[in-house]
Amino acid sequence: MTGKLTVVGLGPGSPEEITPEALSAMAEATDFFGYGPYVDRLDLRPEQRRHASDNREEISRAAAALTLAVQGEKVCVVSGGDPGVFAMAAAVCEAMETGPAEWRNIEFAVVPGVTAMLAVAAKAGAPLGHDFCAISLSDNLKPWNVIEKRLIAAAEAGFVMAFYNPVSKARPHRLGQAFDILRAHLPGTVPVVFGRAAGRADERINVVPLSEAQSDMADMATCIIVGSTETRLIEREGQRPLVYSPRSWMAGKA
Amino acid sequence: MTGKLTVVGLGPGSPEEITPEALSAMAEATDFFGYGPYVDRLDLRPEQRRHASDNREEISRAAAALTLAVQGEKVCVVSGGDPGVFAMAAAVCEAMETGPAEWRNIEFAVVPGVTAMLAVAAKAGAPLGHDFCAISLSDNLKPWNVIEKRLIAAAEAGFVMAFYNPVSKARPHRLGQAFDILRAHLPGTVPVVFGRAAGRADERINVVPLSEAQSDMADMATCIIVGSTETRLIEREGQRPLVYSPRSWMAGKA
Repeated sequence: MTGKLTVVGLGPGSPEEITPEALSAMAEATDFFGYGPYVDRLDLRPEQRRHASDNREEISRAAAALTLAVQGEKVCVVSGGDPGVFAMAAAVCEAMETGPAEWRNIEFAVVPGVTAMLAVAAKAGAPLGHDFCAISLSDNLKPWNVIEKRLIAAAEAGFVMAFYNPVSKARPHRLGQAFDILRAHLPGTVPVVFGRAAGRADERINVVPLSEAQSDMADMATCIIVGSTETRLIEREGQRPLVYSPRSWMAGKA
Repeated sequence: MTGKLTVVGLGPGSPEEITPEALSAMAEATDFFGYGPYVDRLDLRPEQRRHASDNREEISRAAAALTLAVQGEKVCVVSGGDPGVFAMAAAVCEAMETGPAEWRNIEFAVVPGVTAMLAVAAKAGAPLGHDFCAISLSDNLKPWNVIEKRLIAAAEAGFVMAFYNPVSKARPHRLGQAFDILRAHLPGTVPVVFGRAAGRADERINVVPLSEAQSDMADMATCIIVGSTETRLIEREGQRPLVYSPRSWMAGKA
């Protein structure tokens, strides 16, 4: 007898941003795996079981979830934001590929969610209105020189950039290095949005020019959007300026 | 007296993927602007007014919505997917920037949604699990040589790519040209996902190697995800293979 494993996106943090599809998937599950703070936040029935784990334990968490699914349970793995963006959907696939054959033949589904960059962009205006990329700045999972190469490629090709995992205690200086690299390839006037807890009560959205962007403006839970040379500010009376990237490309800038 | 303009993301198409936040924003609005098929699909009260327009009329739609908001109405502009990704949030910002000063001082908000690439990725596995970019292939809004440059930059830097607006009647050959460019910079084995109507009854998800990808596999409503050299297939018994991009970068490939 084989169960089911569903990887569910919880959105940026507010219950108002969880889709009905995600709620339905959670309602039918018996067991919940995920990073402690996400699992703690779930509103479960008494018979639904919580299996919380640490941030760094994605692969062992995926393996434990697959083991239970193969035993016939209905297992949910939860991720903040969208589970497909630098998150648990890929971790479960990695475990499935390298694990026992039976792990590959369970019923497997991914329920998408609103990923952090979309929530931050919505609060800022429309900085992702033109071509953009998403880069994880964590060098736990790839060498720093690959990240550098991608930052330069994205800046030179005119992509807006969203940074996930911008800083951690183990690598406090990487974000500052990333800004330094970008300052060598983009004008200092390019807007940078620091977004934290978008849509939640403790939301914090700050916009600074690239020339003033610093690593201590972000923590682990911040998503950062760096504009392109096309990205613009709209000043407003008594309100934060809007940041947006026009859909049209203006001649002569890239 | 000044009203309010909210740009709302309707998600990929299924009512199950609309967030409660989007439903609340729509419940309090008096007037709805958007592309005809999206506006037709809304479940409105008799006193709520529909203002449907054609696909190509984003700026005049935005101006009409802003004009009503300034008059004190509660206006909603709806977009499929997420309104910040190649969609109405940027069009409204463009109109605000160039229009009368009073357009910039309304109460303005954007409600994010699940954008097409996240829905397609969820159905395919986890192709966006590593660094990726999103590119609109429409050359109505930017010259084709800018698109070519970005395709090459993204391929060479190892980004997975999601294509929006891949084809239209006016430019049936551009997608084929994009695949030809990528075949010169990536191995033919790289998986390409064609996703249409993800999450809806008429959903169609196809996975082919880049060597076999053709423009007639897509229409205007298809979102395409092109893997990187790191993107992998997991074969499964009696099910479509899973496509995923490992979170970790493997040495020696970029």
